[in-house]
Amino acid sequence: MPHKTVIIGGGAAGLGSAGGVKAADPDAEVVVYTEFEDVAYSPCGIPYVHGQEIPDFERLFLATKEQYVQVGIDVHYETSVTGIDTAARTVQVTGEGTVGYDTLIVATGFEYADPGVPGGDLEGLYYVKNIRAAMEWDKVLDSVKRAVVVHATPLGVEMTTSLAHRGIETHLIDPNPWPLADMADADIMAPVEESWRELGVVAHFNTTLKGFVGQGHVSAVATSDGELPCDLVVVATHKTPNARLAAAAGLKIGSTGGIVVDERMATSVPGVFAAGDAVEVPHGLTRVPLQGLTGSHAYAQGKTAGVNAGGGTRAYKAVYVPWGTPAGKWVIGGASFGETTATALGIPYVLGQAQGISRARYYPGVKPVKVKLLAEPGSLRLIGAQMVGQEGIKERADFLAMAVKHGFTFHDLSTMENVYSPAIGALNEPIVVAATNGLDELRKAGKL
Amino acid sequence: MPHKTVIIGGGAAGLGSAGGVKAADPDAEVVVYTEFEDVAYSPCGIPYVHGQEIPDFERLFLATKEQYVQVGIDVHYETSVTGIDTAARTVQVTGEGTVGYDTLIVATGFEYADPGVPGGDLEGLYYVKNIRAAMEWDKVLDSVKRAVVVHATPLGVEMTTSLAHRGIETHLIDPNPWPLADMADADIMAPVEESWRELGVVAHFNTTLKGFVGQGHVSAVATSDGELPCDLVVVATHKTPNARLAAAAGLKIGSTGGIVVDERMATSVPGVFAAGDAVEVPHGLTRVPLQGLTGSHAYAQGKTAGVNAGGGTRAYKAVYVPWGTPAGKWVIGGASFGETTATALGIPYVLGQAQGISRARYYPGVKPVKVKLLAEPGSLRLIGAQMVGQEGIKERADFLAMAVKHGFTFHDLSTMENVYSPAIGALNEPIVVAATNGLDELRKAGKL
Ligand SMILES: Cc1cc2nc3c(=O)[nH]c(=O)nc-3n(C[C@H](O)[C@H](O)[C@H](O)COP(=O)(O)OP(=O)(O)OC[C@H]3O[C@@H](n4cnc5c(N)ncnc54)[C@H](O)[C@@H]3O)c2cc1C
Ligand SMILES: Cc1cc2nc3c(=O)[nH]c(=O)nc-3n(C[C@H](O)[C@H](O)[C@H](O)COP(=O)(O)OP(=O)(O)OC[C@H]3O[C@@H](n4cnc5c(N)ncnc54)[C@H](O)[C@@H]3O)c2cc1C
Repeated sequence: MPHKTVIIGGGAAGLGSAGGVKAADPDAEVVVYTEFEDVAYSPCGIPYVHGQEIPDFERLFLATKEQYVQVGIDVHYETSVTGIDTAARTVQVTGEGTVGYDTLIVATGFEYADPGVPGGDLEGLYYVKNIRAAMEWDKVLDSVKRAVVVHATPLGVEMTTSLAHRGIETHLIDPNPWPLADMADADIMAPVEESWRELGVVAHFNTTLKGFVGQGHVSAVATSDGELPCDLVVVATHKTPNARLAAAAGLKIGSTGGIVVDERMATSVPGVFAAGDAVEVPHGLTRVPLQGLTGSHAYAQGKTAGVNAGGGTRAYKAVYVPWGTPAGKWVIGGASFGETTATALGIPYVLGQAQGISRARYYPGVKPVKVKLLAEPGSLRLIGAQMVGQEGIKERADFLAMAVKHGFTFHDLSTMENVYSPAIGALNEPIVVAATNGLDELRKAGKL
Repeated sequence: MPHKTVIIGGGAAGLGSAGGVKAADPDAEVVVYTEFEDVAYSPCGIPYVHGQEIPDFERLFLATKEQYVQVGIDVHYETSVTGIDTAARTVQVTGEGTVGYDTLIVATGFEYADPGVPGGDLEGLYYVKNIRAAMEWDKVLDSVKRAVVVHATPLGVEMTTSLAHRGIETHLIDPNPWPLADMADADIMAPVEESWRELGVVAHFNTTLKGFVGQGHVSAVATSDGELPCDLVVVATHKTPNARLAAAAGLKIGSTGGIVVDERMATSVPGVFAAGDAVEVPHGLTRVPLQGLTGSHAYAQGKTAGVNAGGGTRAYKAVYVPWGTPAGKWVIGGASFGETTATALGIPYVLGQAQGISRARYYPGVKPVKVKLLAEPGSLRLIGAQMVGQEGIKERADFLAMAVKHGFTFHDLSTMENVYSPAIGALNEPIVVAATNGLDELRKAGKL
């Protein structure tokens, strides 16, 4: 009999897992359960369809249902798993009863944090996730005049920009003094806030959510600063691990609420793996557990969980978290952490900063690229980076995460070679300038 | 008396040097000699003004003459140095006679290799370098119907694309079977050749130059494959070090014809430094000396030479040569070397290749990115990389050169985290896919 793996979840982690199992053991039986009507669509594209940068939802689907059948991945759609019995190696499935497994992968993903205020049952509150729901909400958007986005999380930032692009009067509320305040620094976000103003967005910072107001349908959002009338609310509260099933089954849960896993993505219970937004993994430098990372992390973790569940060997290492996203007319990004997080964690750092450019100064389309590098005092090893610019932010973020991981110093980055070609890169790479400025500051201060 | 540094050359290396001296010793006397009317313009932009991507020449100037005066750099324009006496620490200067120095920096740059064929004295042969000359040639281009570009060097590739963009019927001749054959692989250049065809470029490969034909003004280029009638020839032969002065003064010259320097950019003669295209520096892996690198290298070398000439300490390390340039409708680039060079040097390698994408598959403007990685068999340490794509080639080339330098393996690159955000990056970074494919191939072949 083939080895059977059951996967709970049809998101990036679940499908990465399914592929991983098949890669390690092509004969394995793989069953995927999802509550949704579809797998293999990219939720990440949804904000951009709403913003009309992407013309339709159809192209967000990555593969047809038949393709999964063909590769031997048996997806059960609109099917809930309601319990796990790790001793019996079975799961309880709505409409299917008790189903056995040899190995189990829990990839139940994330949920938006409950806003915890009155009015949560009103119509007109949009939690962006399921693509079928998004297609319906998109029709609604055509008649929305005023919208409120609750919290400047990554999704909140994307949706704010998208709704503004859509021509909707968009208000953003957040309890912090600037957007993305728990990951990005204020100076990185300042140009984003300015470009939002140009787009007509009204941002309300230092403002807490008090409730949703309305008769049946939401008509306003109550805040610490008064009521904001609106036709629609995008609830983009922070992501929390959806680990209820796992916790009920006795899997060890960590301090963030995410399932605890080792480098093999194995949970505390033999035969049970977990991956994606339902788990927590350590930050490479601080070892602080992180939850709610990205689809890219979920996919890679899924692959690792799947390979190991399928009898192979693969390790998933601590993370250095390159990140990036368009925001207003800018692209922001970074790796590891910025000043805000370093300060909050009490991690000492020295800074190297530069206001660089993306192409030759004289080449049409040249854009500013601001780079901030944080290094450990003394060793000058890179411990974090943040950027705001347009071109090449994603590639630089990927690189800087590797630079943190491999312990590159300001010296390494300051002497790094770079491409100079007017249409694609400036004489001085902004990362090099930032590291060089960092060294110059230290020299001036007599600390080098 | 202040320490006096004489710099021969007002290009990237010469001006980088001047800045380096002043950084190390703000009181130093710095005199720069150049044969040209200007310093501090970017020759790199010239092809793009000809191609009308950049609207005018004025913006290629980086600083005004007054700005150099203000920072205490004394530039002597249109002034030739005709000899160096390293024993007396003097140079011979046209119109100035014998001029003393404490330290000397030779930054005499490159020359295009003499084509060595009859007709080299005809009018209508354009050697792209000096900006004043370029401004005159740009007027000539308005009436040029048919042009021939001699040799598919980096500048030849840029000028071919530019002349085609300008609407000129452009022919390219080169003795090799594909463009940039001594640095780029055939498969990397294939899409470029196709996009040139779309632009109406006629490329003549495996074709040698026999001479320039005409009465006073060039009217055709004679080749091994017959005559090509034309109104203008761009002579973009390969770059050679302009090291005549240095050689005559007894400075040690290397196998490439470039001035030999150490990590301080010091030549074989005490008190004399050199930098830029006039020198040769070792490749980081092969230690093979390289000449004719880029303006970015020239600038960084100049800075090192200047700091050391000014009494400071700075090292310039062996190079891993990130490179990149637009070519046709593509951007090509890489680091270290590709298959062609590895094969020519007898360096064994294993390959990891991927045809990736620059954004989410469904995001408008997504472009293919082909990545080829070469690794040392066994250790699987990266030894070279080549790419063809559009977005993010320059940033990836910079990163890959650092990856070669720091000995990253296919394993490191295959497990690297990456940003996934639909508008700026795909779920799977092409570099990661290439490394993963390389590992998969090895596994299939039982070599891992
Ligand atoms: C609008 C939006 C935009 C995003 N943008 C980006 C982006 O730009 N870049 C990026 O990297 N990531 C992005 N993400 C990804 C996201 O932030 C997560 O990291 C990712 O979705 C996590 O994947 P996952 O598979 O762990 O969980 P989820 O995507 O949350 O999937 C969970 C799966 O589990 C299933 N499930 C849960 N409970 C049960 C149960 N009891 N029984 C059966 N099935 C169950 C669900 O049906 C679902 O299929 C975006 C997500 C959204 C929603
Ligand atoms: C058209 C063009 C496009 C380019 N594109 C790029 C690009 O996209 N990216 C890139 O990185 N680089 C580019 N380059 C740069 C180039 O390839 C070289 O690497 C760079 O110019 C080398 O700088 P250098 O200062 O060493 O020498 P050069 O630029 O050759 O300067 C030599 C200097 O020495 C002076 N000189 C020489 N002999 C004497 C003498 N006897 N007396 C007095 N002065 C003397 C000359 O007047 C000149 O000022 C381009 C160059 C050109 C011409």
